[in-house]
Amino acid sequence: MSGRPTFIDDLDFNADGLIPAIAQQHDTGEVLMMAWMNAASVAETLETGRVCYWSRSRQQFWRKGESSGHRQHLKELRYDCDADTILLLVDQTGPACHTNRRSCFYRAVRDGETVEIMTPEAT
Amino acid sequence: MSGRPTFIDDLDFNADGLIPAIAQQHDTGEVLMMAWMNAASVAETLETGRVCYWSRSRQQFWRKGESSGHRQHLKELRYDCDADTILLLVDQTGPACHTNRRSCFYRAVRDGETVEIMTPEAT
Repeated sequence: MSGRPTFIDDLDFNADGLIPAIAQQHDTGEVLMMAWMNAASVAETLETGRVCYWSRSRQQFWRKGESSGHRQHLKELRYDCDADTILLLVDQTGPACHTNRRSCFYRAVRDGETVEIMTPEAT
Repeated sequence: MSGRPTFIDDLDFNADGLIPAIAQQHDTGEVLMMAWMNAASVAETLETGRVCYWSRSRQQFWRKGESSGHRQHLKELRYDCDADTILLLVDQTGPACHTNRRSCFYRAVRDGETVEIMTPEAT
């Protein structure tokens, strides 16, 4: 692919220049995590096929799995009707969550109480 | 359920008192939409079993489907490791998107071009 895809100019980034991105395992449908991207990280993700977020806490690119090896390979990028949210269909290597769980959404509210529905994977 | 579930106090709302909420069809895994909630709309959603967002544009409760009939019945509420994103497993009546498509994520980027992958449902 050459040049920056034009759809990036149509995305509705917030006041900080960021857009939320949901990562979903492409074949099982499991929602793995939600993080943020800026225009440059969207472009890099499409260019490399590896998901790159923008870390709000560290204020730098967050190339998912760069240190952990738990990479996200992009299968398809989609965006919503208001162009203010991205959906990333990915192939996740290992756990997506920094707690070593497959998904960051490992807590459910049942009968008003929080229940952990996923355990950390063995390392 | 009586009283406000205590986990709401653990959620990390942003400076505007809001938290992003992803709606996913509980049985197919399809990601339907992403919108925002405040503490009161989270509480109401759990209390009624019908998803209630907070509309940032209208600055009021947005009881999904109240005018369209395209309601979201809550199956389970989950939240992530940082407690700053909610995942709603729902049973969606009709299309979730205001464009009358099943999901708001009806545009995909393929070979650098935007492609519509979903058509509006017949009314």
